[in-house]
Amino acid sequence: MRFYSKSILLLFFATLVLTDCISQDEDAYMIKEIHNEALKNGMSFNWLTLLCLRHGGRIAGSPAYLGAAKYTHDVLSKIEGVESQFQACEADYWNRGAKEVVTILGKNGKKTPLKALSLGNSVSTSKNGITAEVIEVSSLDEVEKLGIEKVKGKIVFFNRPMDPTQIRTFSAYGGAVDQRVYGPSKAAEFGAVAALVRSMTTSSDDFPHTGVTVYKDSVQKVPGIAISTSDADKLSQLIKSGPVKVFLKTSCKSLGKKSAPTVIGEIKGTEFPDEIIVVGGHLDSWDVGQGAHDDGSGCIQSIEVLRLFSALGYKPKRTIRCVLFSNEENGLAGGQTYARVSNEKKEFHLAALESDAGGFTPRGFSFDADTSVFKTYYKHVSQWLPLLESYGLFFEKGGSGADIGPLKSQKGLLIGLRPDSQRYFDFHHTANDRIENVNKRELELGAAAMASLIYLIDKYGIK
Amino acid sequence: MRFYSKSILLLFFATLVLTDCISQDEDAYMIKEIHNEALKNGMSFNWLTLLCLRHGGRIAGSPAYLGAAKYTHDVLSKIEGVESQFQACEADYWNRGAKEVVTILGKNGKKTPLKALSLGNSVSTSKNGITAEVIEVSSLDEVEKLGIEKVKGKIVFFNRPMDPTQIRTFSAYGGAVDQRVYGPSKAAEFGAVAALVRSMTTSSDDFPHTGVTVYKDSVQKVPGIAISTSDADKLSQLIKSGPVKVFLKTSCKSLGKKSAPTVIGEIKGTEFPDEIIVVGGHLDSWDVGQGAHDDGSGCIQSIEVLRLFSALGYKPKRTIRCVLFSNEENGLAGGQTYARVSNEKKEFHLAALESDAGGFTPRGFSFDADTSVFKTYYKHVSQWLPLLESYGLFFEKGGSGADIGPLKSQKGLLIGLRPDSQRYFDFHHTANDRIENVNKRELELGAAAMASLIYLIDKYGIK
Repeated sequence: MRFYSKSILLLFFATLVLTDCISQDEDAYMIKEIHNEALKNGMSFNWLTLLCLRHGGRIAGSPAYLGAAKYTHDVLSKIEGVESQFQACEADYWNRGAKEVVTILGKNGKKTPLKALSLGNSVSTSKNGITAEVIEVSSLDEVEKLGIEKVKGKIVFFNRPMDPTQIRTFSAYGGAVDQRVYGPSKAAEFGAVAALVRSMTTSSDDFPHTGVTVYKDSVQKVPGIAISTSDADKLSQLIKSGPVKVFLKTSCKSLGKKSAPTVIGEIKGTEFPDEIIVVGGHLDSWDVGQGAHDDGSGCIQSIEVLRLFSALGYKPKRTIRCVLFSNEENGLAGGQTYARVSNEKKEFHLAALESDAGGFTPRGFSFDADTSVFKTYYKHVSQWLPLLESYGLFFEKGGSGADIGPLKSQKGLLIGLRPDSQRYFDFHHTANDRIENVNKRELELGAAAMASLIYLIDKYGIK
Repeated sequence: MRFYSKSILLLFFATLVLTDCISQDEDAYMIKEIHNEALKNGMSFNWLTLLCLRHGGRIAGSPAYLGAAKYTHDVLSKIEGVESQFQACEADYWNRGAKEVVTILGKNGKKTPLKALSLGNSVSTSKNGITAEVIEVSSLDEVEKLGIEKVKGKIVFFNRPMDPTQIRTFSAYGGAVDQRVYGPSKAAEFGAVAALVRSMTTSSDDFPHTGVTVYKDSVQKVPGIAISTSDADKLSQLIKSGPVKVFLKTSCKSLGKKSAPTVIGEIKGTEFPDEIIVVGGHLDSWDVGQGAHDDGSGCIQSIEVLRLFSALGYKPKRTIRCVLFSNEENGLAGGQTYARVSNEKKEFHLAALESDAGGFTPRGFSFDADTSVFKTYYKHVSQWLPLLESYGLFFEKGGSGADIGPLKSQKGLLIGLRPDSQRYFDFHHTANDRIENVNKRELELGAAAMASLIYLIDKYGIK
């Protein structure tokens, strides 16, 4: 029976829909118009190209971030019917410093450089660098099992690969990323002098993947550095034949709080202006690459949703607010500030949709909400699935997005766009996350899918 | 109601499945094993890399094609349990000759070269080339409407773009490709001296797309040449400001019949060896690029299906035959020969699955059969959808593949793999159809999807 619960559910909704007499033909027409406009006259690819080429590497607090904020604010301002603003936000600004040096010191004096990137938030090595023996582990637990005796004075190398057999790559990421987030601090807890982390990708390639690492307050901070998967395999192979020493030198550091405003543009609702529907992504990226998929795509798609409504002359009943959050990668200050200010103003977010999984062909949406309201909402929105199925979209229960997560307490509906995930971790957090790896049609289809769902939420509410 | 027919159908099948007591857990396990093997130990990307780098541009009858046939035959031979062979096939061999020259002759003597490729099967210009005025049309009908008076002595420029609003790009291709296939002959019918055709892609780029053109027997043949979409837009813009003359020089020609064998590898069935299940693609490609997506991917995925069964120790009940057809692009001699020989041998193909839409993330399968049997088959196979849905796959009624089409009269089930179509026409028939534009995981998932369906057909039959 487990295979068929979806079908029975759909049949049940079919009956509901028929009695509700929702005007499906009108909705199907509008959704087609949204897609036509996005695919014929879409601005998302042009806008993303400019964002990437002019404001790449826009880590929150950097001059590049401020440039990106001004640029997207300008783009929003020029869309008819949209009012745009900055929301003040302070982010911890971290700077990579000079190019990282990670070198295997061979027994015969041979030095083999590895492709490496300091993890975000990481402390640096001392000015003279660190030389130590490397011990390889496949988990945080293994560090604990080895204990202080074997770990002290060493560089711990976390080398558990992402599981390639997960069909959705985000599941594989979820199953491996604890090494990057908690590995360096866990290693330090047992006396390690630094940590190397295998890059978070199923590909075997030469791109190191950065990403945030988090330190325990009670533990001394040691450098955390990602190395490319091909170099991780090389290092692992060497360790099998005997002790391996590595030299590390990095100069990254935290430079304190900096201004990194969140960018907002909204179309005020004509009937229920106090019911806010957010569509957004995060404007900051890591400092390497251009932040094309992560998350320039999501930001530009969100702006395009407003442009599509404007171009089609659609006047929303509810307030549609595009929010380009600051500092998702390195602290989530944008999302937290936005929710705090919203709560202070006693706003109500009926729904929030985040696109933060790359500008790939949209496959569907994932829905989340406070447990007290989730079932009612999901039952209601599932009625719309038939309108979106012919665009290749599914609905599922699950997570939404990091930036909109703090809005959950307002008990609205939280939604994540779910694009095809196969290529995401080829680019994620690397120098290779560039505009040439974004396909125009895929990006446009994502924006159209988002606009279609926002249109339905605006028109019918969520219960 | 129209939105819900699929659900009702599924519910009906649910009942069928339960009474049939198909062992879904065992099947789910096997399908998971197939995917694990393809994603962990898959050979498809390595094999495709070698095929592309060593035997790219393998137009049927060329030395490159013969090299590709030998290579894939060798790969098949090395899979345990597989017997491989060549099937003789004669293909019309067409050769591009020297690099095409297509130049706009400006009024001030300025010459602007356009990026161009002769269409497959096209005749060449005379040695001195052709200079004539260009008239732009948007359809074959428009040529007829203009009539001999306006067309005679001109170069007809077919410039109707692929419709970007089609969600599936193959629909857009189907709506525009008549210009390439029949345009040059239609233009000649009304006295044109040559035809230029806008490339078949929704992208605006600098890659001309070749592809077959077909001449009417009764009409004199004139050269047919594709130009890139960006050059097509440029030319169209110029024509708006007054008459434009273009110089053309090509040296392509047909060189008669050449040997271009189809490659076959099979695992003999243990219970019903006379029931054949084909899995295949076409081994030939156009002479430009490497034939990575079209259709190296489909061929290598088909070989991988046999390797997956062999690696997992699965002994099929029916005969599973991998067929790498010759000459799909330029005459379909491979598919026609294969069906003729099969009919002569009184073989029965229970099913045939073709992958010829690129090595992108698989979205599902399209099913076809003789109308006398289609309903029964489709009802039967639809039972398996729940086993494949968690891999993001759908089933639909529709076409299958050009090479397996001639098998339809045997009244088996014909199936086409349906990968995500958004990027296909960025590469199709261009110098850009190269291995670096194929993603390893996407290719592997396609092979795993194909093997999963073939496994179910082998185990349960099709009715």
